[in-house]
Amino acid sequence: VRRIRTAAIVAVGSELLTPTRMDTNSLLVTGRLNALGVDVVHKAVVGDEVSAVALAMREGLARADLVVCSGGLGPTTDDVTREAAADVVARPLQEDPAITARIRERFTRRGMEMPESNRRQAMVPAGGIIVPNEVGTAPGIWLTVDDRVLLLLPGPPRELEPMLAAVAAGLLRERAEGIVLKRRVVRITGRTESHADQALQPLYREWATQSIPIEATILAAMGQIELHLSARAAAEPLADAALESAAQRVVGVLARDVYSVDGAPLERVVGAELTRRTLTIAVAESCTGGLLTSRLTDVPGSSRYVLEAAVVYDNAAKTSRLGIDPALIEAHGAVSEPVARAMAEHMRQLSGADLGVGITGIAGPDGGSEEKPVGTVAVAVAAMGETRVRTFRFVGDRLMVKFQASQAALDMVRRLLLGP
Amino acid sequence: VRRIRTAAIVAVGSELLTPTRMDTNSLLVTGRLNALGVDVVHKAVVGDEVSAVALAMREGLARADLVVCSGGLGPTTDDVTREAAADVVARPLQEDPAITARIRERFTRRGMEMPESNRRQAMVPAGGIIVPNEVGTAPGIWLTVDDRVLLLLPGPPRELEPMLAAVAAGLLRERAEGIVLKRRVVRITGRTESHADQALQPLYREWATQSIPIEATILAAMGQIELHLSARAAAEPLADAALESAAQRVVGVLARDVYSVDGAPLERVVGAELTRRTLTIAVAESCTGGLLTSRLTDVPGSSRYVLEAAVVYDNAAKTSRLGIDPALIEAHGAVSEPVARAMAEHMRQLSGADLGVGITGIAGPDGGSEEKPVGTVAVAVAAMGETRVRTFRFVGDRLMVKFQASQAALDMVRRLLLGP
Repeated sequence: VRRIRTAAIVAVGSELLTPTRMDTNSLLVTGRLNALGVDVVHKAVVGDEVSAVALAMREGLARADLVVCSGGLGPTTDDVTREAAADVVARPLQEDPAITARIRERFTRRGMEMPESNRRQAMVPAGGIIVPNEVGTAPGIWLTVDDRVLLLLPGPPRELEPMLAAVAAGLLRERAEGIVLKRRVVRITGRTESHADQALQPLYREWATQSIPIEATILAAMGQIELHLSARAAAEPLADAALESAAQRVVGVLARDVYSVDGAPLERVVGAELTRRTLTIAVAESCTGGLLTSRLTDVPGSSRYVLEAAVVYDNAAKTSRLGIDPALIEAHGAVSEPVARAMAEHMRQLSGADLGVGITGIAGPDGGSEEKPVGTVAVAVAAMGETRVRTFRFVGDRLMVKFQASQAALDMVRRLLLGP
Repeated sequence: VRRIRTAAIVAVGSELLTPTRMDTNSLLVTGRLNALGVDVVHKAVVGDEVSAVALAMREGLARADLVVCSGGLGPTTDDVTREAAADVVARPLQEDPAITARIRERFTRRGMEMPESNRRQAMVPAGGIIVPNEVGTAPGIWLTVDDRVLLLLPGPPRELEPMLAAVAAGLLRERAEGIVLKRRVVRITGRTESHADQALQPLYREWATQSIPIEATILAAMGQIELHLSARAAAEPLADAALESAAQRVVGVLARDVYSVDGAPLERVVGAELTRRTLTIAVAESCTGGLLTSRLTDVPGSSRYVLEAAVVYDNAAKTSRLGIDPALIEAHGAVSEPVARAMAEHMRQLSGADLGVGITGIAGPDGGSEEKPVGTVAVAVAAMGETRVRTFRFVGDRLMVKFQASQAALDMVRRLLLGP
């Protein structure tokens, strides 16, 4: 059997050829393939036409051992990936009654009748191996073409991702070479990209020459820096060990500015620390409009430590809900350190939580002044015996200011929990 | 001369074949081309190898009138786009002394000597037309291949964008058809993709044969359906009018299930309606953890109508903050229609807002039961004299349940505002 060393990716969907939509599935697919040592050598995007999809599949098969197609497996007539694949493998499409039954049952469970059009999703080129879809109606299909493989997966990422994981653990792993490429993301706050990069230069040099070399790429993302590490080895534990040791070297250099060595987002890091210490938190938000609390509650199990939050967008609500003295707002302005401090402390008291957070700022596009331009945000974190307050000036549009403010608040909580 | 009606895009760069980087230039290129009526029929990403780039160019030229290549025009040996193009057009690379002089001068102006490697950037396949680069060193190149065109542009967006604008205003405009391509996104709730698609079949048939035909693609996104419409016409107002009329026909068929005919997200539609009627809103969230309020406040100007919100994650907070009777929670459970109703009505009263929203549910992964599985969410909207309550069963992980619940709540507010 031919080993799978190289892959081409074909994204199907006319909407992906417009100025507003991108194929992001190929990033997921590339990550999974790389982890099995399979290199992606080509990516293509094609519209919803049988001939265009079939041509792209043929071009992919001419240059790679595996072609992964995403999209075009829906129930409508512009979903043509099945037809194109049948043409490429030169085998007829046949309805698989087991799939039809499964789709019908999904509809029945929701009290709906299956539209006839959904039967299209049960059509499979003869000889295709079904990849079950636990999340949606369209199954995936694994087809062999001479000694190469054509894999069809649905377009929605939440369907594609688990199916890809299943294939990577099964059919694909058996056919891959056994060299693994593993990646790690180390996440950093409190430094600029170039400062972090300079501090890490000696590590880069060392990593390049060690027995399992580490490749590193530094990227500036909003409100944080990401260091992407990768290692290639004969076995997963070897690559993992090299990456773990590299990540710990980064912590040795950047200390507390590293908030996660495994790609965990800041809300998960903060949540884990609150859980570990059985502490609770309550939040008073103004300009972030609930985003900080929404991020905190994105983490499974957050009901153990998130008690409550108040979004006091209106000044009247700051007073009626949190008991903030109107005179304080009058004296310093709603966007000020004294008001942020009062929001955090009052919220902590009201809720009985161990930690209180207050955020007040100007998200824009309106509401800025010379003294307090758009992007000015005051953040306070109140704990027993200590309240920390800082004022930030964020750059960017409304959504970017909201995100950066929530990120700054989470980071202040994290650093306070770490202690002196 | 052959008119340019279709284009293929080739992005060159091995880094674009990794799991963390995407080709975003093609969106810029597509926008420019569409404005001239040129349809993008294929996109490809290839690594930095002469044979791979040349093959992608050939494949592009086989399917389109124009191939736009971005990237691979730098001074280093892994910049191979010039060599690949020379191979494809079967003409030799020649150094253009005017370009060398220009590059040398750029270096001199900064007090630097031009590295010899930069002479690579002055190499042009015989017959190529130079597209000047005001921002960087690499010029673009316009090559004719039989009756088709191969256009080479540098990868950095800040260099590519002005060069593309210049080409679009000059060489390309002369060769394009003088036809514009415009797009619209119509957004729909309350129907499945296949139900909406079936209802729209008569429109699709009609659109295909009218004087300015409308192309339609239907897509299922989380908590909504999108219908992408496009029209080609001799002038922008004609295309716009055809799209507007098509969008109104969709409204005629799907009525209130259409929430926007211009791609606006639901929070913007609800915000516009609240603004138009000078109404205010306040929110009590449990399982969505602040997401609904964060989405409402993503809209610029939302401080005019969002008064406040309470995230009452904890049952104690439901009572202390909203005055919800513990006996009610005891009798029906925290996730129940009576509790959602009380949250909405109490929040409305407390805040003095015109509308109150209450959301309580089980986002998972834990907390589900046989009777109330993960994904069960009760949503209530209270207005003067009327409270509407519904229970949903959403499918998906925690973030998906949160998003769908916020989407359902926004849609209930929208429908209530529309009246009977």
